[in-house]
Amino acid sequence: MAHPDLGNAPTPARALPAWLEDGRRWIEAELERVLPGPDEPPARLHQAMRYALLGGGKRLRPALVRLVARELGGRDEAALAPALALELVHTYSLVHDDLPAMDDDELRRGRPTVHVAFDEATAILVGDGLLTAAFERLAEEPAPRAAEHARVLARAAGSRGMVGGQALDLALEVTSGAPLSALEDMHRRKTAALFAAAAEMGAIAAGVEGARRRACAAYGLALGLLFQAVDDLLDVTGDAATLGKTPGKDAALERPTLVAALGLAGARARAAELAEEVRGRARELGFGPASPLHELSDFVLERPS
Amino acid sequence: MAHPDLGNAPTPARALPAWLEDGRRWIEAELERVLPGPDEPPARLHQAMRYALLGGGKRLRPALVRLVARELGGRDEAALAPALALELVHTYSLVHDDLPAMDDDELRRGRPTVHVAFDEATAILVGDGLLTAAFERLAEEPAPRAAEHARVLARAAGSRGMVGGQALDLALEVTSGAPLSALEDMHRRKTAALFAAAAEMGAIAAGVEGARRRACAAYGLALGLLFQAVDDLLDVTGDAATLGKTPGKDAALERPTLVAALGLAGARARAAELAEEVRGRARELGFGPASPLHELSDFVLERPS
Repeated sequence: MAHPDLGNAPTPARALPAWLEDGRRWIEAELERVLPGPDEPPARLHQAMRYALLGGGKRLRPALVRLVARELGGRDEAALAPALALELVHTYSLVHDDLPAMDDDELRRGRPTVHVAFDEATAILVGDGLLTAAFERLAEEPAPRAAEHARVLARAAGSRGMVGGQALDLALEVTSGAPLSALEDMHRRKTAALFAAAAEMGAIAAGVEGARRRACAAYGLALGLLFQAVDDLLDVTGDAATLGKTPGKDAALERPTLVAALGLAGARARAAELAEEVRGRARELGFGPASPLHELSDFVLERPS
Repeated sequence: MAHPDLGNAPTPARALPAWLEDGRRWIEAELERVLPGPDEPPARLHQAMRYALLGGGKRLRPALVRLVARELGGRDEAALAPALALELVHTYSLVHDDLPAMDDDELRRGRPTVHVAFDEATAILVGDGLLTAAFERLAEEPAPRAAEHARVLARAAGSRGMVGGQALDLALEVTSGAPLSALEDMHRRKTAALFAAAAEMGAIAAGVEGARRRACAAYGLALGLLFQAVDDLLDVTGDAATLGKTPGKDAALERPTLVAALGLAGARARAAELAEEVRGRARELGFGPASPLHELSDFVLERPS
């Protein structure tokens, strides 16, 4: 497949595949229930947590847990807690990354960021509360799986994973001309680690262990790297209405991105390469072109936002 | 016992009881090992996490887990993971609470706070990393206990507990004349919930369930309320060298404290009442004056910082 033409006008979106839309609906009904109600004290904090969590989003990580679990013969019920936990962790990371001391973003998913809509202290606490809620939800699962899922999630999300990736991103910001290896190490931690955890938790939910479980994690990692590569491309080629966030910001801030490192054509080629790796990993798992796990590479590559 | 004379000069400290000093040494050796080394990438983040965690402190919460476990016949090894997790959570909460958008403190445990020694973005990530590490450590325990401990810790630390308490504290700040009930509700969440979790996890570590486990949680809650009451008193009567943080700050900011609500004498009387409750809870558990659990009320009441 040719890589997409991400020009100045956003690429028309393919119809969101049914399995992804279905996954989104499945998790959104549950997200509504996972947090304390908006009137429960401290009401303002809980309202802000709900604002952050329920404000839209593709819900790609929860859908991935469920897809992997299903493709491996697992039940949706077993995928639910890790799917919720992943979305809670992903959302907390957005809230903290958007803070003035971090990326200083005012727009997210088309709405004011939490520190703009509420205030900075509340945004810090919203992130802390969402992260804690993620592990609370996992701990409510049957015991052996609860600990297994928590181990995978904590490693992916912690200082060696996602949190470390954000630290590297902030450090690279002031380093002009970061080498590609440093950039992709940052992407691996900041974005791909959580995708890897999603796929691995899907395997755990399906009772799959050993080499096959590790192959799922490798699939998720490749998918996450692809997702981040496309994110870097979209910052250059997308528009605010489609993205729901401020485009062109990475370039304006001279942030380290694939586009900065490789140029637009080089970044597109790298994304196509990563998409091929995702398809290869899917085939390794025994999932051919008819499987959503195979098709996901196209979806991520062609996503409009 | 009469309540302590916390005058302008700090009360001379009694010798730190041997069981507390012993608990402190026990956990510090392990804290050194629980985080990635200072050279592991991202090095600056890991150095900042270690700076926050290894910069001293009474280590009261870990000691409490171990004391309760021991008094109930449990082994230190079973108390280790929850003890580490509690200190990680407590430390993350200090790092985030000290941020400019929150309490804006520059001094903690006698040293510059993390956002002063490093920077604000790093301090946010340090907190996120420490919180995640707490649940990672718990998840490494044998499975049934891992999930049980994680459940207790997440409930105590989340938006209904500690994080919610900090939100209430910030909200009360702008409300003059907060009623005592609102103040103690805030103290219950912000401080006492984690003490309750410490005592409850000590019981779980000892294999104690049901009413006795709940009695441990109630003991910890009372101890935490006492601790916070003494904290409010020390802000008025302590000095920076002894406290390791800026005294008089609550009063200067017109923060809601027991002293603001009840006056100095009233706050002292309330602390003495809470100390009596702690002793009563210890007796309910079958621990008389000879037990460290009984003696802890005196220690907390008389602590110089």
